[in-house]
Amino acid sequence: MSITPRIITLTTDFGLQDGYVAAMKGVILGMAPDVRLVDITHDVPAQDIMTAAFVLLRTYRSFPEGSVHLAVVDPGVGSARRAIALEHDGHTFIGPDNGLFSLVLSGQEPQAIATLDKPGLWRAPQPSTTFHGRDIFAPVAARLAMGLPLIDAGTETRELGRMSWALPISDHEGIRGWVVHVDRFGNCITNITRQELERLRERRDVKCYAGNTIVSHVVNTYSDVSEGEPAMLINSQELLEIAVNSGSAQRLLGLERGAPINILFTEDLIA
Amino acid sequence: MSITPRIITLTTDFGLQDGYVAAMKGVILGMAPDVRLVDITHDVPAQDIMTAAFVLLRTYRSFPEGSVHLAVVDPGVGSARRAIALEHDGHTFIGPDNGLFSLVLSGQEPQAIATLDKPGLWRAPQPSTTFHGRDIFAPVAARLAMGLPLIDAGTETRELGRMSWALPISDHEGIRGWVVHVDRFGNCITNITRQELERLRERRDVKCYAGNTIVSHVVNTYSDVSEGEPAMLINSQELLEIAVNSGSAQRLLGLERGAPINILFTEDLIA
Amino acid sequence: MSITPRIITLTTDFGLQDGYVAAMKGVILGMAPDVRLVDITHDVPAQDIMTAAFVLLRTYRSFPEGSVHLAVVDPGVGSARRAIALEHDGHTFIGPDNGLFSLVLSGQEPQAIATLDKPGLWRAPQPSTTFHGRDIFAPVAARLAMGLPLIDAGTETRELGRMSWALPISDHEGIRGWVVHVDRFGNCITNITRQELERLRERRDVKCYAGNTIVSHVVNTYSDVSEGEPAMLINSQELLEIAVNSGSAQRLLGLERGAPINILFTEDLIA
Repeated sequence: MSITPRIITLTTDFGLQDGYVAAMKGVILGMAPDVRLVDITHDVPAQDIMTAAFVLLRTYRSFPEGSVHLAVVDPGVGSARRAIALEHDGHTFIGPDNGLFSLVLSGQEPQAIATLDKPGLWRAPQPSTTFHGRDIFAPVAARLAMGLPLIDAGTETRELGRMSWALPISDHEGIRGWVVHVDRFGNCITNITRQELERLRERRDVKCYAGNTIVSHVVNTYSDVSEGEPAMLINSQELLEIAVNSGSAQRLLGLERGAPINILFTEDLIA
Repeated sequence: MSITPRIITLTTDFGLQDGYVAAMKGVILGMAPDVRLVDITHDVPAQDIMTAAFVLLRTYRSFPEGSVHLAVVDPGVGSARRAIALEHDGHTFIGPDNGLFSLVLSGQEPQAIATLDKPGLWRAPQPSTTFHGRDIFAPVAARLAMGLPLIDAGTETRELGRMSWALPISDHEGIRGWVVHVDRFGNCITNITRQELERLRERRDVKCYAGNTIVSHVVNTYSDVSEGEPAMLINSQELLEIAVNSGSAQRLLGLERGAPINILFTEDLIA
Repeated sequence: MSITPRIITLTTDFGLQDGYVAAMKGVILGMAPDVRLVDITHDVPAQDIMTAAFVLLRTYRSFPEGSVHLAVVDPGVGSARRAIALEHDGHTFIGPDNGLFSLVLSGQEPQAIATLDKPGLWRAPQPSTTFHGRDIFAPVAARLAMGLPLIDAGTETRELGRMSWALPISDHEGIRGWVVHVDRFGNCITNITRQELERLRERRDVKCYAGNTIVSHVVNTYSDVSEGEPAMLINSQELLEIAVNSGSAQRLLGLERGAPINILFTEDLIA
């Protein structure tokens, strides 16, 4: 019988130039030599917890159940903030208790949460005060990936720090949302879900005020409009995205993270 | 008997900050847990098919035969452009049919080509219209790496989209070529091959007009000229490269991708 | 009995956009299919040997003994500089003999050194003159990771190129050191060790002249001072670091690599 090696994903704001990520991987492989390591990203802007939370949300479900997702964006390292691990939706998450997993949970209670308070499971009983990624999170993630039950990784708790996106504001006339992420292509992803949009829209046309432009096409894919043309589409995460075919919506429309997106339903019935 | 795990390489213009690459890896590892994943690059400039084609050309032969090379630079995602896989030179390539594999093929016919038109092999029968990397290419690459014959991945075809470099123009007097890639060190790689250069040169000296300079040294390695000195050399891919010892030819000579490189053969015989 | 796969780490100044790193990995996996590859960093500034040496120093000990650390920052590629491998502290290091491993050795003699002069172990007996990473270092690293004794990888030698940091200058009044690395967060790491600082300080207070500021807090972790406040702390490598809570010491204090850091011991006894 062969056992599928467990996967540990890594999400940090460490960047790749300083060797911090490699130090974590070295610790993990020293304890769990067969584990598969996959970088989600290490380019989270320094100390930007919500961007990390968003990238985790959009990514974790592509991994098989049983994966361990290690995330370290940790402005409070060395302070009293807790280190935690939790189980949710068949996956295990581990990192500082500062809201990193809020979007993954989207308001639900995790199946279980543990405060990581057992120094015997760490790299050394006295961890560095500035690098818990290497000294606490990496070794505990390795043990969880090797099969340590969550409950044995620390002390069970129900407490959890949370952060949340502002929710879109909507009424019968329209929806006011925000750009929550701008990707490498300049696509501007909003906090407006397909479900919300379709529920309120009924059979009406849609006009969208975004940056310096009014966008009126809702399309299925980028190339449904001409090159350089902006459009709305529902992206691979079921969120409304403002994009420009073969161009950058960020640059062409003057949008940034946090920019308001105003959707107006017009009375014209769609044929 | 132990079976060597198959390798899947990944080449995209996704960058690493958004988690798109990790989503593809998660899908692959969910289906083919023992496959080895190697990033070629994810820093292809957005939608720059020819740069991706060039990096694939210079890299794929370093991998063992049987490797699967997954490439996604896909401005036409969701449009009518086909998804394909092909076999060539003992390797398998998979991606959109937009010319990405043209330089690898360098004018030859692949051994086999399949149009990836079997939704049963995809992540879900209804793929996202904006992320075929995750929903079509990753799962089919995983199946190919697990041994699925190319012919069963889709429908066999002979059609293939191609792009090509402008070829150098040459006569008895010289060669006019172009810079096709500038690497991280500012080395400027041209489309002039060692073979072409040696065939036409005979025993004559070479003068090369490149940017703001005339380069007259053909050397074997960077340090054969003094620091800061420009030179021509044949690089590790058998292509003529303009380089500066301990410096950047791009910056010092004012060269960019697309810049003309004019080689003149002088009548002086080499001793 | 299962054998733990050996680890090869990679540290280069190749960047990730050109496929050079992937070419090395392809060669390694073709020869050692089960080896684990871990990137330390490929973002060493071009030809900056000391930065690579520093990142190796801070990282290698996180990996299990027996790991092979391949480092290629190689301005002299193709020249007469030797290719070497060495054993030190239970780890194997391989790369050009230009001082890359000086900080790892910190003045000690390695257990064994070999000059890599056996073309039969290379990718081809005639390696490219510009890419020894792919043609010499990768294949020899693969063989070392597969168990080839160091002594069989080349010819034993005692010669080794070395570089060194300027050491801090100290007397009873204080210590004059330098910033040796600025990390992604703008933390400024100095060449002053905890041991040196504690030995000289005795029970006195400390004042630190760093850039445009005098720092007087020695703290255990970033959040021991208010946000935006600078502080001294001993980092995860036991080196004195100048940092700013939730900010960049580099930007706020105007520090760069090479900047002097002057520590003065004041006569006030600590309570």
